[in-house]
Amino acid sequence: MIELYTWTTPNGEKPVIMLEECKLSYEMHLVDIGNGEQHSDRFKAINANEKIPALVDRSMGGYSQPVFESGAILIYLAELTGKFLPQSTRHRSQCFSWVFFQVGHTGPMIGQYHHFNSAAPEKIDYAIERYRKESRRVLGVLDGHLANNAYLAGDYTIADMMHYSWARIGLKELAEDGEFPSLRRWAETIGARPAVRLGLEKLQTAKDARG
Amino acid sequence: MIELYTWTTPNGEKPVIMLEECKLSYEMHLVDIGNGEQHSDRFKAINANEKIPALVDRSMGGYSQPVFESGAILIYLAELTGKFLPQSTRHRSQCFSWVFFQVGHTGPMIGQYHHFNSAAPEKIDYAIERYRKESRRVLGVLDGHLANNAYLAGDYTIADMMHYSWARIGLKELAEDGEFPSLRRWAETIGARPAVRLGLEKLQTAKDARG
Ligand SMILES: N[C@@H](CCC(=O)N[C@@H](CS)C(=O)NCC(=O)O)C(=O)O
Ligand SMILES: N[C@@H](CCC(=O)N[C@@H](CS)C(=O)NCC(=O)O)C(=O)O
Repeated sequence: MIELYTWTTPNGEKPVIMLEECKLSYEMHLVDIGNGEQHSDRFKAINANEKIPALVDRSMGGYSQPVFESGAILIYLAELTGKFLPQSTRHRSQCFSWVFFQVGHTGPMIGQYHHFNSAAPEKIDYAIERYRKESRRVLGVLDGHLANNAYLAGDYTIADMMHYSWARIGLKELAEDGEFPSLRRWAETIGARPAVRLGLEKLQTAKDARG
Repeated sequence: MIELYTWTTPNGEKPVIMLEECKLSYEMHLVDIGNGEQHSDRFKAINANEKIPALVDRSMGGYSQPVFESGAILIYLAELTGKFLPQSTRHRSQCFSWVFFQVGHTGPMIGQYHHFNSAAPEKIDYAIERYRKESRRVLGVLDGHLANNAYLAGDYTIADMMHYSWARIGLKELAEDGEFPSLRRWAETIGARPAVRLGLEKLQTAKDARG
């Protein structure tokens, strides 16, 4: 049995989408990061970095090594099922490139923008502007690539799943009306996938049930 | 022939180390990021994100898709050679987890610390403290894991190569004397490897030759 530790955040959505796309069965364990549950001893034993998401596969064999980091989780599930990670060298290396681009750029830059724009106790114009500009640059790189490509790396892959939640946030909070049209078109295509809708619905329902 | 586009920076060192560890032959193309060469049209065609490192493998077959992002480059070379990426599910998923931990946390946090501590035009205490604290937390996570493990994921893997340059900087700039002893021990082991020394030497020599 696959156990997923997650929450209703951009990084927490990715493995839910992948699990639904792969039609795998799994148990969802919510870790309320607004409530500090990621810092409990129980969760630290699963991810010493104290962040969601993390996954434990009890069928991995005698020793169930937790997998942490959304990128590692999606690769683990792709290798388990043989799905959504291209085999051809060209698309495979491109897929990995865009997966890392998400983890190293799209995520941290929009994340830091959020922190300085909404969470930080002081309003620091320099920092807000730095991350606004860098986040918009990253959205532009994605938009440019998607102008000539339906998906990030050939067919629909884990690279698209990694980017979907972050692109949605970026388009909502950092783009002018009609800006980044190719990224918008792509986001609509991904958002219309039944597995994506189902995954996000299940995650929200689980959270609502918690009260 | 493998062409590596890189520079003497933490992310630029990683592929050089991996290429030397795998005993592959390659051409090194320096992209002086202090001089804006990453923004040239020629380099943008290789990496639309305008950052080093990037790799082009002319033997990849008819179409030489550039690989960008250090993580994707190291995975590409690991799959090409069958080296430094474990096959066993347990160590493999652990290896990917730590590779992404580097790209998503160690790199961006120390990178942002650097920016606010040394490069930013204003001295913003809140931001310096934020990234100092977060970088030190990340170094602590690594140190804790290495207290019980010789390497990050079983034997020496790409996860160690991804972390080596960042750990060196972190220990030098963000740690007190003797702090993070397991990370220090690990960094000394990695730094003593002939391929690591040779790679860093070649990179430095190439830069010096440029004047
Ligand atoms: N690079 C990581 C990022 C994970 C991450 O930042 N998770 C956030 C939620 S989106 C979290 O757990 N934050 C809680 C905290 O920092 O205390 C990944 O892709 O999984
Ligand atoms: N996540 C990327 C980071 C690449 C990166 O940040 N490269 C820096 C040098 S260490 C760069 O090219 N900076 C130039 C610039 O930002 O203009 C990777 O791991 O390859």
